[in-house]
Amino acid sequence: MARPDGRRPDQLRPVTLTRGWSTHPEGSVLVEFGATRVLCTASVTEGVPRWRKGSGLGWVTAEYAMLPRATNTRSDRESVRGKVGGRTHEISRLIGRSLRACVDLKALGENSIVLDCDVLQADGGTRTAAITGAYVALYDAVTWLAERKSLTGKVEKVMHRSVAAVSVGVIGGEPMLDLCYAEDVTAEVDMNVVCTGAGDFVEVQGTGEAGVFARDQLDALLDLGVAGCLELADAQRKALNL
Amino acid sequence: MARPDGRRPDQLRPVTLTRGWSTHPEGSVLVEFGATRVLCTASVTEGVPRWRKGSGLGWVTAEYAMLPRATNTRSDRESVRGKVGGRTHEISRLIGRSLRACVDLKALGENSIVLDCDVLQADGGTRTAAITGAYVALYDAVTWLAERKSLTGKVEKVMHRSVAAVSVGVIGGEPMLDLCYAEDVTAEVDMNVVCTGAGDFVEVQGTGEAGVFARDQLDALLDLGVAGCLELADAQRKALNL
Amino acid sequence: MARPDGRRPDQLRPVTLTRGWSTHPEGSVLVEFGATRVLCTASVTEGVPRWRKGSGLGWVTAEYAMLPRATNTRSDRESVRGKVGGRTHEISRLIGRSLRACVDLKALGENSIVLDCDVLQADGGTRTAAITGAYVALYDAVTWLAERKSLTGKVEKVMHRSVAAVSVGVIGGEPMLDLCYAEDVTAEVDMNVVCTGAGDFVEVQGTGEAGVFARDQLDALLDLGVAGCLELADAQRKALNL
Amino acid sequence: MARPDGRRPDQLRPVTLTRGWSTHPEGSVLVEFGATRVLCTASVTEGVPRWRKGSGLGWVTAEYAMLPRATNTRSDRESVRGKVGGRTHEISRLIGRSLRACVDLKALGENSIVLDCDVLQADGGTRTAAITGAYVALYDAVTWLAERKSLTGKVEKVMHRSVAAVSVGVIGGEPMLDLCYAEDVTAEVDMNVVCTGAGDFVEVQGTGEAGVFARDQLDALLDLGVAGCLELADAQRKALNL
Amino acid sequence: MARPDGRRPDQLRPVTLTRGWSTHPEGSVLVEFGATRVLCTASVTEGVPRWRKGSGLGWVTAEYAMLPRATNTRSDRESVRGKVGGRTHEISRLIGRSLRACVDLKALGENSIVLDCDVLQADGGTRTAAITGAYVALYDAVTWLAERKSLTGKVEKVMHRSVAAVSVGVIGGEPMLDLCYAEDVTAEVDMNVVCTGAGDFVEVQGTGEAGVFARDQLDALLDLGVAGCLELADAQRKALNL
Amino acid sequence: MARPDGRRPDQLRPVTLTRGWSTHPEGSVLVEFGATRVLCTASVTEGVPRWRKGSGLGWVTAEYAMLPRATNTRSDRESVRGKVGGRTHEISRLIGRSLRACVDLKALGENSIVLDCDVLQADGGTRTAAITGAYVALYDAVTWLAERKSLTGKVEKVMHRSVAAVSVGVIGGEPMLDLCYAEDVTAEVDMNVVCTGAGDFVEVQGTGEAGVFARDQLDALLDLGVAGCLELADAQRKALNL
Repeated sequence: MARPDGRRPDQLRPVTLTRGWSTHPEGSVLVEFGATRVLCTASVTEGVPRWRKGSGLGWVTAEYAMLPRATNTRSDRESVRGKVGGRTHEISRLIGRSLRACVDLKALGENSIVLDCDVLQADGGTRTAAITGAYVALYDAVTWLAERKSLTGKVEKVMHRSVAAVSVGVIGGEPMLDLCYAEDVTAEVDMNVVCTGAGDFVEVQGTGEAGVFARDQLDALLDLGVAGCLELADAQRKALNL
Repeated sequence: MARPDGRRPDQLRPVTLTRGWSTHPEGSVLVEFGATRVLCTASVTEGVPRWRKGSGLGWVTAEYAMLPRATNTRSDRESVRGKVGGRTHEISRLIGRSLRACVDLKALGENSIVLDCDVLQADGGTRTAAITGAYVALYDAVTWLAERKSLTGKVEKVMHRSVAAVSVGVIGGEPMLDLCYAEDVTAEVDMNVVCTGAGDFVEVQGTGEAGVFARDQLDALLDLGVAGCLELADAQRKALNL
Repeated sequence: MARPDGRRPDQLRPVTLTRGWSTHPEGSVLVEFGATRVLCTASVTEGVPRWRKGSGLGWVTAEYAMLPRATNTRSDRESVRGKVGGRTHEISRLIGRSLRACVDLKALGENSIVLDCDVLQADGGTRTAAITGAYVALYDAVTWLAERKSLTGKVEKVMHRSVAAVSVGVIGGEPMLDLCYAEDVTAEVDMNVVCTGAGDFVEVQGTGEAGVFARDQLDALLDLGVAGCLELADAQRKALNL
Repeated sequence: MARPDGRRPDQLRPVTLTRGWSTHPEGSVLVEFGATRVLCTASVTEGVPRWRKGSGLGWVTAEYAMLPRATNTRSDRESVRGKVGGRTHEISRLIGRSLRACVDLKALGENSIVLDCDVLQADGGTRTAAITGAYVALYDAVTWLAERKSLTGKVEKVMHRSVAAVSVGVIGGEPMLDLCYAEDVTAEVDMNVVCTGAGDFVEVQGTGEAGVFARDQLDALLDLGVAGCLELADAQRKALNL
Repeated sequence: MARPDGRRPDQLRPVTLTRGWSTHPEGSVLVEFGATRVLCTASVTEGVPRWRKGSGLGWVTAEYAMLPRATNTRSDRESVRGKVGGRTHEISRLIGRSLRACVDLKALGENSIVLDCDVLQADGGTRTAAITGAYVALYDAVTWLAERKSLTGKVEKVMHRSVAAVSVGVIGGEPMLDLCYAEDVTAEVDMNVVCTGAGDFVEVQGTGEAGVFARDQLDALLDLGVAGCLELADAQRKALNL
Repeated sequence: MARPDGRRPDQLRPVTLTRGWSTHPEGSVLVEFGATRVLCTASVTEGVPRWRKGSGLGWVTAEYAMLPRATNTRSDRESVRGKVGGRTHEISRLIGRSLRACVDLKALGENSIVLDCDVLQADGGTRTAAITGAYVALYDAVTWLAERKSLTGKVEKVMHRSVAAVSVGVIGGEPMLDLCYAEDVTAEVDMNVVCTGAGDFVEVQGTGEAGVFARDQLDALLDLGVAGCLELADAQRKALNL
């Protein structure tokens, strides 16, 4: 079962993490997983939402969106339709949870950080690329806070874990890592794995798109996913010069 | 680690599936997992949405919602706020995918079935109770179609698998089955497992709410979840007299 | 002119008022007028909306809604359509006005109570059943406040009147009490009568759906409506053990 | 109990019905009940909404709205708030029902008429002024259709009844006709009466705003309302030169 | 090239400015440019929006809207569609900017004035009529403030310039002043000119609707527009008895 | 009066037009005016909107939007707020009009092209950069159509004019070309000039943000704007190898 771009089943697409792609945000990363291209920006606000005031805890949240022509056919803008779609909501929530898992909100103090993940070009794995890139943008934003002495803890204390994500799937009965769009639409099982740099799970979501899957398939996908995430964690460390 | 209601870690809450709770729908089930109470109705329409016409395939979709005071404190109505929230969207999509996994859409023919899952009272596990109850309502709706000869295949051909779901979680380091609300809010890891009656996976979603989780924890949760789903499949068969 | 269920023209359908149907709300009643089934819950909040602060007066309001398949054919959810329909608005306002008429808002003090009336199954008379059931749920919520000593007056002072409602209509020229859906759609005149337990009017709304009506018809309908409301007031007293 | 403008209890405010106030609509009337000023326009479209096609029946509907500064203090625009309020919905529906009661929809044939009633200045009784003025605008629109031979029946056949409306209320225990705003806010009972030119009822809506009302009060209000409507019917006939 | 109403190319339509058309607002003007009829009201609120508090500056804003049947064919209400259209937004913003240009916001002090411009009848030039009329309503509202001693400066200090607006266009190659609707739809170039009473520009917007335009055409249109605005400034002075 | 980046008053910022920045759209250009960066994509659909069917004419429209953190402080997403803001609407409409001015819609035939202009980074002049870049993307999309023989005319016939845009303004009394954000906020007059490659005007919009402007200032700004547009037209030709 040859992959469209000739990769091995356990091989990631070329990954690039371009820090500082935008000048305004406190952290900004253009992340590319092959042809998938997501702009992740981290925006810092002093203070936290009203319901969290006085808690001593910070807040991290995320919003995901696609440009109308990030995909092969144009989608209507959610702003024009007047509502955010279910898929967008679901992915924004996933990114937010994943990023919060790598932050010590107490050490962050009463600061808020919004991660905006805008897909400029989509070719499968946009949500996993977004999580992987947003981690790096978040790290830069926390560093920015530390440099302004707005942080009680040190950067490493706030960012006490790294987090990365990758998609895996079963195609023609074979488990594959980091599906591109052409693979994604034919996958029998589709799974997103979000891991820390230590290989622990933050989130696991597997769906039998066109069928069901057995325990041994699930195990093989998890192995593949964890390995992919560890490789991405390495790329994140390099990008951050850690 | 005693559970609030004295259950063993691997024990479900009392489950009831009351068929025909409402008179209007083609299928209707009041499902109860302990104090969680969800009204699942199946509404049949001849024909399919425009984008599916002429395909020969049927369509199954789901909508999940909570009454404002299904929970301990009142929530604003989504109709009054003017938009469907992210959590609602996410759960509706999960229920829809899970139910489609148990239906042969070709055998269903160009008929549409909407599963409405309205939470009348919430005490944890509302989405898994909804899936478990909706399967039974869907079965009744397909039988209704068969009796009207609007089905090319037989009921058993359309409903070629059963599907049930249960939540599992880690509390105080220990894996537990079918969390009630008081347990859910303290769980370190929270997972929903959707399985067929044969114990295959339809969907797996695990989140480290307040931390991360290791592979062996994940394995223990999956074991617990599959066992719970098989027990629920049994309850479904009894309710349907199969 | 025989009625579908064999009732006399001046006969109510069987009425049941099940208190405490839900465990979370401060008051909850499942009210049934024949096959019409409405879940009424009363939610208490300390304090009042901003525009009423410092007035010393409480606030009572209501929201009415139907489950999508409460009716014979499925309706789209108002949350999905993104707006509350005119009929829903109109009925919510009627219920709120009717309930406020039976409460001494000064004796209630600066507390707010929301009555949620969700139609689980509709067979005509949903708004009148909602008012009749909501009164009982409201009474329980006020009692709950009294038990917590959050009330300046006594329960009987706050709930200084009871309120109940019933529909009446003209079918085939004959006035009828408490129309079921099949009767409602053929009625020439349709009227809702909201009365206190003493038989005074709180609200009267009559419409010539398919024509106009003369003064003597109106008089006959009012007689029928008042008698029906008094009978419902009796059922409320029994349900509340007053 | 003197009225602010010195009227007798059973006296209408000065009523003017200015036909042809606007040039574009098929019918347009500026109606004034004292300082209350409503622009009623009737817009004709050939054909009927999709759900009514092929029925041979016409369709009449109404939309009511207030300019932001029609009232003493400015209200936000419903377009800017993004939704139509409950009061607006309720009144639009009342006007629509009232106007349909005076039209033979079969004789109208498959034509649609929308009545827009925009309150330019409000001083109580806006909904009753709107109904009274909209009837005249509707008459002109039906005449317009007849002149273009788009009508199967004659104008008098389509407009087989006239309809007018007036408010009545109890102030200081005394029944009063056609309340202005200053009276409306102090009324104990508030009622709108919609009658045909023959004095039959089309709609009756009475509310005990600040209390309840007895049968004899209701009777007195109905007497007053019918007399007021008959006087308005006379003004309509004069305006239409009938 | 004869104009539909026989005007010279450089001639305005008859202009009327009726002050005090409504009784509630602090300023109200019915402005007519030929058959175009716009009701402009000025609503004063003490205080300014939150983001401006403590600045010592006042705030002036505008909202423009059309009645559904102000035009030849009926448009849906923006409140019913649930959103304000692009054209409406654009014109509201233009009116607001134009009016702020004639007000000394410091001398106004922390007071807010909203100009509502509702088109009752449209025949071209509604936005320019709205600006011209709103200026007069604004002047009256500022005078109202001065009479209540809520103004630090004098009226003439606050209203330190007058502002008026007119449309110009090229039809059949010829520049024309103050286009009516029939002219507007055939114009090759369409321009709105907003000027002070001294003939300075506040805003210039020119569009080649059906083509492009050269510098000399632009110059001719500006000459025509300035002359028209000066004439309107004269009418404003007369209306205000200045 | 030195400019922040040392430019002469009549000097553009560095302009780059990167064609084919995205792979999916039929035309895509990343346009940069200094630090302003806009992604312009052209999406082709065969056929036209319903209201234009059978006209033989094509359709060109545009949508403008900003990423939340394109600016110095983060803005809420319009999709999350549930509505498109006035400024966004206004700019989308301007871009659409400008692009339609350079297209022969008859020669385009019944094809539709949507120009999406998404601001990735904003530093003043986003709308003029968007028009300038969108023209190039549109040219590529029309070429794409021609290559698929879906065009009745030739590319040059469809694209019968080029169009570019630039901002000009008065700062400290001096006219300046192509304002960056820091200049824009201090400008006394702000104008956008949209010209064809031949130097004719397509659209002119000038606003006295903080004052008014005289005819000679307007003339100087127009001179500057036309010269800037001609320079941009040259850059467009080079980018398109024309």
